[in-house]
Amino acid sequence: VPTIAFHPKPVFPRGFRCASRNCGLKPAAKDIALFASDVDAAAAAVFTRNHFPGAPILLGREVIRGGVLRGVIVNTKVSNVATGARGLEHARRMARAAASELGVSADRILVSSTGVIGATLPIEKIEQGIQGLAAELQDDPMQGAEGIMTTDSYPKALSLATGDVTITLVAKGSGMIEPNMATMLAYIFTDAKVSAGRLDVLLRDAVDESFNMLSVDGDTSTSDTCAILANGRAGEISEEEFAAALRAGCIRMTEVLARDGEGAEHLVRATVRGAKSATDARAIAKSLINSPLIKTMVHGADPNVGRVLMAVGKSFESAVQPATTDAWINGHLVVQRGERIEFDDAVVRASLREEVVDIEVELGLGDARATAYGCDFTHGYIDENAAYLSS
Amino acid sequence: VPTIAFHPKPVFPRGFRCASRNCGLKPAAKDIALFASDVDAAAAAVFTRNHFPGAPILLGREVIRGGVLRGVIVNTKVSNVATGARGLEHARRMARAAASELGVSADRILVSSTGVIGATLPIEKIEQGIQGLAAELQDDPMQGAEGIMTTDSYPKALSLATGDVTITLVAKGSGMIEPNMATMLAYIFTDAKVSAGRLDVLLRDAVDESFNMLSVDGDTSTSDTCAILANGRAGEISEEEFAAALRAGCIRMTEVLARDGEGAEHLVRATVRGAKSATDARAIAKSLINSPLIKTMVHGADPNVGRVLMAVGKSFESAVQPATTDAWINGHLVVQRGERIEFDDAVVRASLREEVVDIEVELGLGDARATAYGCDFTHGYIDENAAYLSS
Repeated sequence: VPTIAFHPKPVFPRGFRCASRNCGLKPAAKDIALFASDVDAAAAAVFTRNHFPGAPILLGREVIRGGVLRGVIVNTKVSNVATGARGLEHARRMARAAASELGVSADRILVSSTGVIGATLPIEKIEQGIQGLAAELQDDPMQGAEGIMTTDSYPKALSLATGDVTITLVAKGSGMIEPNMATMLAYIFTDAKVSAGRLDVLLRDAVDESFNMLSVDGDTSTSDTCAILANGRAGEISEEEFAAALRAGCIRMTEVLARDGEGAEHLVRATVRGAKSATDARAIAKSLINSPLIKTMVHGADPNVGRVLMAVGKSFESAVQPATTDAWINGHLVVQRGERIEFDDAVVRASLREEVVDIEVELGLGDARATAYGCDFTHGYIDENAAYLSS
Repeated sequence: VPTIAFHPKPVFPRGFRCASRNCGLKPAAKDIALFASDVDAAAAAVFTRNHFPGAPILLGREVIRGGVLRGVIVNTKVSNVATGARGLEHARRMARAAASELGVSADRILVSSTGVIGATLPIEKIEQGIQGLAAELQDDPMQGAEGIMTTDSYPKALSLATGDVTITLVAKGSGMIEPNMATMLAYIFTDAKVSAGRLDVLLRDAVDESFNMLSVDGDTSTSDTCAILANGRAGEISEEEFAAALRAGCIRMTEVLARDGEGAEHLVRATVRGAKSATDARAIAKSLINSPLIKTMVHGADPNVGRVLMAVGKSFESAVQPATTDAWINGHLVVQRGERIEFDDAVVRASLREEVVDIEVELGLGDARATAYGCDFTHGYIDENAAYLSS
């Protein structure tokens, strides 16, 4: 059994560095970040399934076919989406500027932009901002995490080790996040030696159980990207061991992103067991996580547990039998055989005030299971999104 | 062309009356309502598709097979859902109490309960409250509308006439409302002569274009019911004429319910044209209406129009081509061929402050169209739902 150990503080695997800066897109906060590998890294990526992908996504799909990356360049504030041919040219210029800094060809650079949809990218500011960035590359992943933040309340990076291999994730949330696409922006760096083809398979598997089961608001960004770079500096590793560590890292980061969803005060995990199929388990877990009435129930710490049944029951296409359905909130049985049972209201109410709220549903119809990750719904979400463009 | 005229104030068609009371479920407000036809009425109904239907839904599905109703009895505060065999017996007792009042058999009574899920129905209070209710039957539909309110901010009833026929709708909202089921509670009374079989067809058609295209929060109640009673007192009417009036009435009530969604300050209508199929048009219209980022954009009157593309684009299963996609906000073109165009920000911003906000999308791929109805997302929704059970 491979041991997976999370680092107390994020560190880069061998051969990775990053730098970030303010280039004038935001008043003062950092707004661009460069991540670099000292050597060519095998690479894979998954992107949003939205029908209106941003220009960086169109370019990224092209670049990732090569299976090799040396760097990732990211800007915030403007997402370069719905900007047409000019937007695509801007994304290419961003890649060329980063490539020139790193002394590599532009097809080794993945570009990401996040922020307002439909605005023109201030490409000159970004090109100027990239100049000299390579000289500032340093070892702390948090510096890169700071450079990719939008409405996140803090920068997000984490590292874990399995054997001699390190895996480090740097990501940003925190709204417009919904399952069934890659996810927001998440970059994974590892010194394991894994081929681009296998990376693609392992990344998709890990994302499927983690970022694709995350939902803050049911809205799917046009810019979502999750990429992995493996530079091989730590040598070979058993694929099973690597896959387990990658999955653990992705799930942990998914929880971090969910907890910091816009306005969120709780991490909510919904686990569905005993489903007839994995599709059913996933659909019902997501239905629970996305339900505004569940999200406000957690926010209000009000054990209105009938809403759990409502949210399970509105998965019309899934197999559900009231007579075999049980449910728990933080381990307290609240529904048995489709009926709300008597429970200690004060105990469940107190439990809903915990930072992590686990909702578990046993469907009693099969062996499939799934967990989805989300957060509560608060005034903060509305405040952030009612004036996002103007702020 | 039949003329449809909305009455300035709701009135009952010939032969219908109602009464409502407080029976102690709420501190002081009315909490039960009885609707009655003087004679047997042909009847049809559609119910929630939620897998956990309330006891009144189970009973209602049984009763409506007879195709004849004399009355509808409704209580609020407790929905009698997830209450098992005892809940079903309580629903039957409610029907018997109302039937006894009206001097008819219990299979002529439709029962509805709305409120908290999973609580035991206070059936003794309700039975006592029903006693003597028949003696209070009167002609104002608003009295009945008052008796079925939960979080609605005002009672909802409207009437329209076509020829000699009157159609009156009495309904309540205003959260846990999502397309693809009947809808909240809506009762339709008419003096037209229509068979139960045809009523069923016409009701389903009208609901499909109205209540099923309404969404306040994407959550589907376990109690949703929409029933129609036609007592024939105005005689025959052309089916086409009746269908048009029924549809118009249902759409108007849908708009009323959307506008009074929990916490809402705007009615939002999303119309999708040029879709490849009706399924696509409906899915995309609903995606727009349900998007929290669209709902907060309207709330904040902030023309972050890229979110319209995001919400169109996240309908993964629908045919969408950026190059043929245009969008308007209250008639102002904001997206052309998949790109955000320059527009007068102040004009669009002012337009978003209007009480009704129309979002229109032309997909340019076919002839299908659909309109969905919703509202903006405000602090009010969270306040009402974070403490609904306890309040």
